[in-house]
Amino acid sequence: MDQLLFWLVPAASVLALCFAWYFHRQMMKESEGTPQMVKIAAAVRKGAMSYLRQQYKIVGWVFLGLVILFSVMAYGFGVQNSWVPIAFLTGGFFSGLSGFLGMKTATYASARTANAARNSLNSGLRIAFRSGAVMGLVVVGLGLLDISFWYLLLNAVIPVDVMTPTHKLCIITTTMLTFGMGASTQALFARVGGGIYTKAADVGADLVGKVEAGIPEDDPRNPATIADNVGDNVGDVAGMGADLYESYCGSILATAALGAAAFIHSGDTLMQFKAVIAPMLIAAVGIILSIIGIFSVRTKEDAKMKDLLNSLAFGTNLSSVLIVVATFLVLWLLKLDNWMWISCSVVVGLIVGIVIGRSTEYYTSQSYRPTQKLSESGKTGPATVIISGIGLGMLSTAIPVIAVVVGIIASYLFAAGFDFSNVGLGLYGIGIAAVGMLSTLGITLATDAYGPIADNAGGNAEMSGLGEEVRKRTDALDSLGNTTAATGKGFAIGSAALTGLALLASYIEEIRIGLTRLGATDISVGGETVSVQDATFFDFMHHYDVTLMNPKVLSGMFLGSMMAFLFCGLTMNAVGRAAAHMVDEVRRQFREIKGILTGETEPDYERCVAISTKGAQREMVVPSLIAIIAPILTGLIFGVPGVLGLLIGGLSSGFVLAIFMANAGGAWDNAKKYVEEGNFGGKGSEVHKATVVGDTVGDPFKDTSGPSLNILIKLMSMVAIVMAGLTVAWSVF
Amino acid sequence: MDQLLFWLVPAASVLALCFAWYFHRQMMKESEGTPQMVKIAAAVRKGAMSYLRQQYKIVGWVFLGLVILFSVMAYGFGVQNSWVPIAFLTGGFFSGLSGFLGMKTATYASARTANAARNSLNSGLRIAFRSGAVMGLVVVGLGLLDISFWYLLLNAVIPVDVMTPTHKLCIITTTMLTFGMGASTQALFARVGGGIYTKAADVGADLVGKVEAGIPEDDPRNPATIADNVGDNVGDVAGMGADLYESYCGSILATAALGAAAFIHSGDTLMQFKAVIAPMLIAAVGIILSIIGIFSVRTKEDAKMKDLLNSLAFGTNLSSVLIVVATFLVLWLLKLDNWMWISCSVVVGLIVGIVIGRSTEYYTSQSYRPTQKLSESGKTGPATVIISGIGLGMLSTAIPVIAVVVGIIASYLFAAGFDFSNVGLGLYGIGIAAVGMLSTLGITLATDAYGPIADNAGGNAEMSGLGEEVRKRTDALDSLGNTTAATGKGFAIGSAALTGLALLASYIEEIRIGLTRLGATDISVGGETVSVQDATFFDFMHHYDVTLMNPKVLSGMFLGSMMAFLFCGLTMNAVGRAAAHMVDEVRRQFREIKGILTGETEPDYERCVAISTKGAQREMVVPSLIAIIAPILTGLIFGVPGVLGLLIGGLSSGFVLAIFMANAGGAWDNAKKYVEEGNFGGKGSEVHKATVVGDTVGDPFKDTSGPSLNILIKLMSMVAIVMAGLTVAWSVF
Repeated sequence: MDQLLFWLVPAASVLALCFAWYFHRQMMKESEGTPQMVKIAAAVRKGAMSYLRQQYKIVGWVFLGLVILFSVMAYGFGVQNSWVPIAFLTGGFFSGLSGFLGMKTATYASARTANAARNSLNSGLRIAFRSGAVMGLVVVGLGLLDISFWYLLLNAVIPVDVMTPTHKLCIITTTMLTFGMGASTQALFARVGGGIYTKAADVGADLVGKVEAGIPEDDPRNPATIADNVGDNVGDVAGMGADLYESYCGSILATAALGAAAFIHSGDTLMQFKAVIAPMLIAAVGIILSIIGIFSVRTKEDAKMKDLLNSLAFGTNLSSVLIVVATFLVLWLLKLDNWMWISCSVVVGLIVGIVIGRSTEYYTSQSYRPTQKLSESGKTGPATVIISGIGLGMLSTAIPVIAVVVGIIASYLFAAGFDFSNVGLGLYGIGIAAVGMLSTLGITLATDAYGPIADNAGGNAEMSGLGEEVRKRTDALDSLGNTTAATGKGFAIGSAALTGLALLASYIEEIRIGLTRLGATDISVGGETVSVQDATFFDFMHHYDVTLMNPKVLSGMFLGSMMAFLFCGLTMNAVGRAAAHMVDEVRRQFREIKGILTGETEPDYERCVAISTKGAQREMVVPSLIAIIAPILTGLIFGVPGVLGLLIGGLSSGFVLAIFMANAGGAWDNAKKYVEEGNFGGKGSEVHKATVVGDTVGDPFKDTSGPSLNILIKLMSMVAIVMAGLTVAWSVF
Repeated sequence: MDQLLFWLVPAASVLALCFAWYFHRQMMKESEGTPQMVKIAAAVRKGAMSYLRQQYKIVGWVFLGLVILFSVMAYGFGVQNSWVPIAFLTGGFFSGLSGFLGMKTATYASARTANAARNSLNSGLRIAFRSGAVMGLVVVGLGLLDISFWYLLLNAVIPVDVMTPTHKLCIITTTMLTFGMGASTQALFARVGGGIYTKAADVGADLVGKVEAGIPEDDPRNPATIADNVGDNVGDVAGMGADLYESYCGSILATAALGAAAFIHSGDTLMQFKAVIAPMLIAAVGIILSIIGIFSVRTKEDAKMKDLLNSLAFGTNLSSVLIVVATFLVLWLLKLDNWMWISCSVVVGLIVGIVIGRSTEYYTSQSYRPTQKLSESGKTGPATVIISGIGLGMLSTAIPVIAVVVGIIASYLFAAGFDFSNVGLGLYGIGIAAVGMLSTLGITLATDAYGPIADNAGGNAEMSGLGEEVRKRTDALDSLGNTTAATGKGFAIGSAALTGLALLASYIEEIRIGLTRLGATDISVGGETVSVQDATFFDFMHHYDVTLMNPKVLSGMFLGSMMAFLFCGLTMNAVGRAAAHMVDEVRRQFREIKGILTGETEPDYERCVAISTKGAQREMVVPSLIAIIAPILTGLIFGVPGVLGLLIGGLSSGFVLAIFMANAGGAWDNAKKYVEEGNFGGKGSEVHKATVVGDTVGDPFKDTSGPSLNILIKLMSMVAIVMAGLTVAWSVF
């Protein structure tokens, strides 16, 4: 029965891919509209694909280097699991593939959305949302497919006779975990590179086009406008997809590993197996419910803006409610020990995600006081807009942190039977809360990817001169996307925090395996010897003295906090430099190519695309490498306590910093929109100019540095996990 | 011999106070200049004193509340040391007194400095610097006096017969530690209130006066100009003084407590006594060397700017070199165990302070590339100035963090005999490194307090119409002050981090005492029982499971990181609100009082002073109370592991955030100055306007939120220490 239940996992992944294919086909059947619309969409698609090709080339070199390193470690020195080099590659490959497929669909969908918006708001929504759903379903489908594949493969090839069945599952789950590093690495480059690309183009287009030349957004006379539209695709679609692919796989794999570890001493192989497949099953059921949710998003033909919003909200809410019911059902069917309370942990994760999303909405939407007051601060100029925005962003960290803290404690206690000392099950509870939060990723990511598609549709409509009415409809779709994006970001950040915690716990399991590989059989715990196989979390913590008074832990924590800031600083500066090149180029074109501003000559869009591409490629390398090297170096110097300090310091600071940046950026964006809606003098007033400065500063906050931190948090843990063998083998102190 | 050596401590403190009196008398003998100068100085003095009175009134109420709370805890429930209510009061009183005396001197000195600058640059420097030295010497003098007083008192009143001599010293030092909370509380209000005051006035004066009305800085036509000058005194003199008073006492007391704890098991009472007085002796010697350094600051009559800088640098460098030699000498005389390596720990602290100061200078001075490039980013408008400044600030956290990490490890290992497991002595090493960093505070604080005096002298010269030449000299003095302030800030932040760590360790000692008071004799450590008296740091860590996998620790850390951001956000918003009131008032005066701008009518300065005072008073309460309540609440919910997580999360995030904010703010300030020196179009150009926005944003960064974080870090530890008895007695989880 239980073995049978497992087959639900690959089945759901295939189902997701089939529906993704179906939605893609459906969308492709629509007309792309006028020849001008086709032409613009083709230019954006070409730019996006050429960027992705370049990015994958660089990522390819990094992967080659890392695979060689892992191979040497595994086959040369024996301080690495021999499956890691291959697992690492598949993780990276599938992550890259989902980015590619999602982005391809998005670039095909934008003109079709604009064209459909000529008929009605509802048809526009339908195409944009279902195309977004392609991204959502591809991510969850490929993610679960990779997980199923490795689970089945490793089960088949690892011989049972060399170890007890309980230990076999531990080996399998911890090996699988390392394919997460491939996904993390890919995600890092996608988020950082895409983030730099999109904001360099955006800031460049705004500063010269909007501010200096005074032409509207997405005006075809602006040379950077195609690059700006490409940016939405490479940053918000491909980057966001890779980010959540990674959280999705990471949370499932880490929870499976924790499940295997939690039951290692019970000798109850069956229960261990159940704990391992539980997170996969919840994810599988989540896929089915996401598809149901996606189909439920439909409105009547003469739908108003409010109906659209309700309709989208209905889809996601329906999935969330159903997943709660389904979780209890599945875990009961599975007859997992303590199934009722573990289901409650899943619900906790969902609630935390929703609370963070709501809090983001409150702090960043112009319907609420904080952003309205931010607009008002524009009365005293740009400086007070910046001060107030930073203040707002910092204050907005309180609710999400408290939500996560309550979530940690609640999901831990539920799963641990209200006993703090039951560490194994407690951590499993935190992991499964992350799985719960991400279980309906299929639909939440659909509402996320929908945003840039609508945004691009608007750009296409503007550039093709489709007229006021159509532009108004695409604007409505775009604005709807901004609201849903807030919830999406809440899930991305919240899941990164919980997944990060689950990965931390899995790190300890990797330490156990690393020690075993080195031939160590015992560790000393407070004078006594405990066998490596039987040692608990508590034993490892005490063996390595991972307490807060160990200077290695403290040093690691300072370095971890610094990493979050350093990484943000590097990406902020990267955007600044890349944007400056773009500004120079746009200014040059206005100066040298006659007739651009009168609309007689077409600007050289391709050069701007090329500049953004080159800028992003060059700038993404240093921050990415630092994120990979830091945990390795910390491990080599300070050993296990230093690494754990680094990870937790990075996690706690990075989480708070990410929320601060995302919310400040979002609030600045909407404060500008609030003024544009006619408040405090409206468009063109001094207040408007002040809020435009805020919006420009907010761009890299919310779309480059902030989201990249999600990946930094997870990638550092993943690197630590993959390098655990090296860390236990040797360190300076 | 050793008992005799101790008398050096009160002697040095009295010496410091005598020299402070001498420098004050000397300064008072100088002429205050023209009647107009006297009048302006009196107005500033009156405003500053009236602010301080208001602040002390509010602080008085908070102190009353806390003393009642402590008394109930101590005399009612027995979960508090009975000396705490009184010790708390003296700490607060002496901290307030040094702020009052330092500020009084500063307000008397500004007109005299301006008047002396009419003769020569050198006479101006002499008066300003020696007046700054009054602040420096009052702080160290009163600090050591309070320490000596309590040490002697407690030694006399605590009977030896109820406990072993080793334990007596532990009780004495941990009791003394709690007077640090009085100093912390006072410092918090001084930094936060003063910071809000000074920046509300500054931003208000700049936004309307400089930007809207186009009149120069410190112009008498600006109604907020007196308030702006008052702000320099209440923020930079009184606030900075209270901050460092607290670090100074905190580091000495925490190190003494760690020294007592480190030798508790050796039974060697004499060595324990030596470890306790060693930090006090180093501080005492540091006072003498500071006075020598202060006297060495003198130049020839026709000194140029460069000579002045060299002369100031010579004074501080001389003190630093001498303290290295003196430390080895004193610890050798004391015959402290391992004296040579412990002296090395002291040197490590000095070096870390210097490295942080140099790094601050590199990132914030317009003589170096980072700030020059920041100015250049003004070419593309205010938004890129903000983006680049934030990027710069974040990158600038790397060197200080690495310096502190190397400092932690080195000072720990030196003192611990290169053995990580020797926790007691290792932590003692970290504490004594903090003492080393602050040992020459007498002179470093003098160079710090010198800055606002020179700034005010410039304001006085401008308002009194003293002419181009004098104004140029005061500008030179002011600019010199900016450079020395960079180093001063490095010491303030670095010492807060090291002191914070030492306080953390002392917290464990308070736990021991709290348990004893509750009648607990044993704690369980991994199944075994250890007596509370004999338990090591390691035992306490394991008893409370203060490991990184404990969800209570993790929750505490998230909350700690959040606290740093929340606190900053509250203070940023407070400045925004208070500044907005000021802007309204200045605009109203320009509008309603005829003839202000033509210079015919005098504006209503006092109203602006009153508005800043009221704004600061109102706004400082919420952030301050949150800082006091957070550790108490965390303790009540999550117990000891939660509190330690909170403190370390706050420490690591807060330290990095503080550096980010201080350096970004400093760089914006100087980027504007660099443009004003004639680069990128000079004063009045578009680039200049862009950098003015950066400067305005930077004001609350570097003078309100950033420095307040220093206090937050230390205050949260102090509150935890004082409340340790309550935390061990009861918590929810």
